Amino acid sequence: MPAHRHAAHTIHGDHSHIGWDNALPPVLTVAPGTTIAFECQDASGGQLTAASTLADLAKLDFGRINPVTGPVYIDGAQPGDAVKIILEAFTPSGFGWTANIPGFGLLADQFPDPALHLWSYDKATLTPAAFSSIARVPLKPFAGTIGLALAEPGVHSVVPPRRVGGNLDIRDLAAGVTLYLPVEVAGGLFSIGDTHAAQGDGEICGTAIESPMSATVTLDLVKGANLAAPRFTTPGPVTRHLDAAGYEVTTGVGPDLMVGAREAVARMVDLLSATHGMAPVDAYMLCSVCGDLRISEIVDLPNWIVSFYFPRVVFA
Amino acid sequence: MPAHRHAAHTIHGDHSHIGWDNALPPVLTVAPGTTIAFECQDASGGQLTAASTLADLAKLDFGRINPVTGPVYIDGAQPGDAVKIILEAFTPSGFGWTANIPGFGLLADQFPDPALHLWSYDKATLTPAAFSSIARVPLKPFAGTIGLALAEPGVHSVVPPRRVGGNLDIRDLAAGVTLYLPVEVAGGLFSIGDTHAAQGDGEICGTAIESPMSATVTLDLVKGANLAAPRFTTPGPVTRHLDAAGYEVTTGVGPDLMVGAREAVARMVDLLSATHGMAPVDAYMLCSVCGDLRISEIVDLPNWIVSFYFPRVVFA
Repeated sequence: MPAHRHAAHTIHGDHSHIGWDNALPPVLTVAPGTTIAFECQDASGGQLTAASTLADLAKLDFGRINPVTGPVYIDGAQPGDAVKIILEAFTPSGFGWTANIPGFGLLADQFPDPALHLWSYDKATLTPAAFSSIARVPLKPFAGTIGLALAEPGVHSVVPPRRVGGNLDIRDLAAGVTLYLPVEVAGGLFSIGDTHAAQGDGEICGTAIESPMSATVTLDLVKGANLAAPRFTTPGPVTRHLDAAGYEVTTGVGPDLMVGAREAVARMVDLLSATHGMAPVDAYMLCSVCGDLRISEIVDLPNWIVSFYFPRVVFA
Repeated sequence: MPAHRHAAHTIHGDHSHIGWDNALPPVLTVAPGTTIAFECQDASGGQLTAASTLADLAKLDFGRINPVTGPVYIDGAQPGDAVKIILEAFTPSGFGWTANIPGFGLLADQFPDPALHLWSYDKATLTPAAFSSIARVPLKPFAGTIGLALAEPGVHSVVPPRRVGGNLDIRDLAAGVTLYLPVEVAGGLFSIGDTHAAQGDGEICGTAIESPMSATVTLDLVKGANLAAPRFTTPGPVTRHLDAAGYEVTTGVGPDLMVGAREAVARMVDLLSATHGMAPVDAYMLCSVCGDLRISEIVDLPNWIVSFYFPRVVFA
């Protein structure tokens, strides 16, 4: 972990909101360049704990899903600027959960039944976390949801990501990264939450290793950036926690990227189930926390290739 | 380069065919486990050379595009089996080209004019190849087209990849990888070509560093594999030639993966043009040979995120 700036403020997890609304009063107003620690609840808002069972998953109140901590008003931020967010550090809790929630996820039609896996990981060492007795998942903590308020008034669901950020679920938004988000309202109104201990590109079953943690970020400003969508810079490699033993790769070939993605993932679930004796739903959840969706080819008319990369180190 | 098996046969590049046709007579019949060196023409079939100009690109005969070397009949291969292909080694030529061909490529509507870049790289050391004076592209040779004959009679275009392989353009089909392809006709009828010295995931402008080279592969058989589509195993990391200095990443956010991919790439072209003073078409071709399309999130209804990762080492 490189040296990073320490927080001048701490915002506790009870200062959270559900959905985005530019009328929410800020919990803090800061000058550009200020470093803040945000205590982030998990995506269930504390409804799932280390003692939870499948029955608790069935009782989940979706009205309380994905709380974000904030908002923070950044002095001087105006529409047309970008907020420059330096992700200084994540301090994970050691507890996490992954679930197949009926109706949600890339293969929701093939996995109609609920499933829940609880994780316990070493928050000090971040040693790969055991998934049953056969797999160990490398950890890379990050925040799934990082965003600003939309110009449009009213409450907007936290589920979809938007041009101002939000539920981006980009696995590489980890410590050391600088993220830029377009400002649409005065102050930007920054919030963060939905922290994950690990996730694969795609987050294919709909959940990652959902895990409460503290996120320390520096909020700065780029005047007149006129950014159209989120962009970010990583200071170094992004897959070295996964790549050492190579990958098993399945493909989907055809004229529709969504169908290709579904086929590639379904074929990996079949392959892992067959070769490692896993229940398909376990393979599906495991793929979500460490497997990566890539577009191998998008120009050879009329067929594109979406590939799913599963890291072999997980079974090493 | 790890130790690898040496070829028992060499098939020269004039034993090539355009398109796939299961009536083509094999140029060689081998027992499973045989290692063969295939001399592969570049995707232009030799129409573009180190002396070519934009005028030669305009005269390109598309009827001669993407010749593949073969076919090879594998004894005992029957429908339902898989051909197991061990990619032993690639021996590049040192010459390559990248082009923007009007009407072809992810942003064909935005780049209507032809462009051609000629590459000269050190075939012995594979030192990153210079692109004008400002960028150096790490090389990783592989074959863009690897496939078997289709069950359906007649000639089928070589352009689209299919369930039996073909123009897969998967960047990671490099030395050391094992690829599995479904057999649909007796003998499988294996061919290979369209070799690339480097490519990014997506091959977004439609061409890579197109480069003639020799490919040494071992053809083996897995009886009764009942494979639905290509799959492969990599023995180690796949992006370490690119990842050391991290990435600049742009995103496309919305309900359509193709639109998201186009937006992410267009934003990277804009970013590179603005920050490195490149002509947009040069940035577009550079992105095609070293930038990667990834699906960051495909579950947060109704918006998905496609990200384009450009390796910073190229400008280091």
